[in-house]
Amino acid sequence: MTAPLEFYFDFSSPYGYLASERIDALAAQFGRKVRWRPILLGVLLRETGGTPPTQVPAKRSYFLCDFARSARFMDIPYAQPQPFPVATQHAARAYYWLLDQDHALARRFAHAVFRAYFVDGRDISTSECVLALAAQAGAEPAALAAALLEPVLKERLKTECATALVKGVFGSPHIIIDGEHFFGADRLPQIERWLASGGF
Amino acid sequence: MTAPLEFYFDFSSPYGYLASERIDALAAQFGRKVRWRPILLGVLLRETGGTPPTQVPAKRSYFLCDFARSARFMDIPYAQPQPFPVATQHAARAYYWLLDQDHALARRFAHAVFRAYFVDGRDISTSECVLALAAQAGAEPAALAAALLEPVLKERLKTECATALVKGVFGSPHIIIDGEHFFGADRLPQIERWLASGGF
Repeated sequence: MTAPLEFYFDFSSPYGYLASERIDALAAQFGRKVRWRPILLGVLLRETGGTPPTQVPAKRSYFLCDFARSARFMDIPYAQPQPFPVATQHAARAYYWLLDQDHALARRFAHAVFRAYFVDGRDISTSECVLALAAQAGAEPAALAAALLEPVLKERLKTECATALVKGVFGSPHIIIDGEHFFGADRLPQIERWLASGGF
Repeated sequence: MTAPLEFYFDFSSPYGYLASERIDALAAQFGRKVRWRPILLGVLLRETGGTPPTQVPAKRSYFLCDFARSARFMDIPYAQPQPFPVATQHAARAYYWLLDQDHALARRFAHAVFRAYFVDGRDISTSECVLALAAQAGAEPAALAAALLEPVLKERLKTECATALVKGVFGSPHIIIDGEHFFGADRLPQIERWLASGGF
């Protein structure tokens, strides 16, 4: 028996979205499961001193091109959303609330959030959008709406972000396999070889 | 007839070294040549506001791991040099001086500089090391030693860095194919598909 992969991401991260479309199937090929852990990239960057590449003028146009090109390369639908990036605390908090009830429901919801933003261009920053996506995934929106207002769920997300920082997570996507760290959707080929060979 | 690929790199960039070991053969598969253009990453980062990841405490250990792991993944010899990074202006200036005389000689020298640093752990920052590597590659070291002291060669490297900035180069390796930009050794698979398909 082997531990699940840990998959850290922000719901408004393009490379996080690309990884989300492949990571479960990749892990399953080697009999592994994946623990999805949404975090707030802004919180991590504030602590680690990072800057999103699209906020650096010299890098912005390159990365906007690379998001879409990497999606085409991986054969994943992608439409650059505007505004970008957006706040994702409602989506992340909703995910953890759903996770405590039903893992499969939380996974469906997470895919729905990513696709709503990166395929359909919906504004996933609002609690209205988050509640609608949760309802579509099969959750009870009134109970979730109440939970989103509670301090306990806000604390839960803070704790997840703090835990990620302690583990050494600094970006999105950031995947940990048996203590080995992989940063970026472009590390999926290395992850595949790592899982196949038990390290290389 | 198609234009050469433009390959921008710093001689102390690990991912630049990894790309240097593959880019010529990859381009040749599609009948393309490569123009190697060493630049000073420090100059580019000063202009674009970037920070090398190994100088960010939260990222340092990850990237030191990833340099070596990416090398193993690509089946390229790699030994993390110390000190790291080092100043590469002597090596870059020597490259341009050699290039004006003999393209093949300049290419041999560039490979020798990268391998001296990333395989043999030699200090490529000194003019003594640069001259020795140039001599081994077949150059006349006394003439190069004199040229390294001349303002014209210093200006040449400044101009190459300025040209790179104007083109939108912000890191190492940074490869331009018919106006399309690719950043990082991990973009070699996308470059291969781009060359094979004429864009995707």
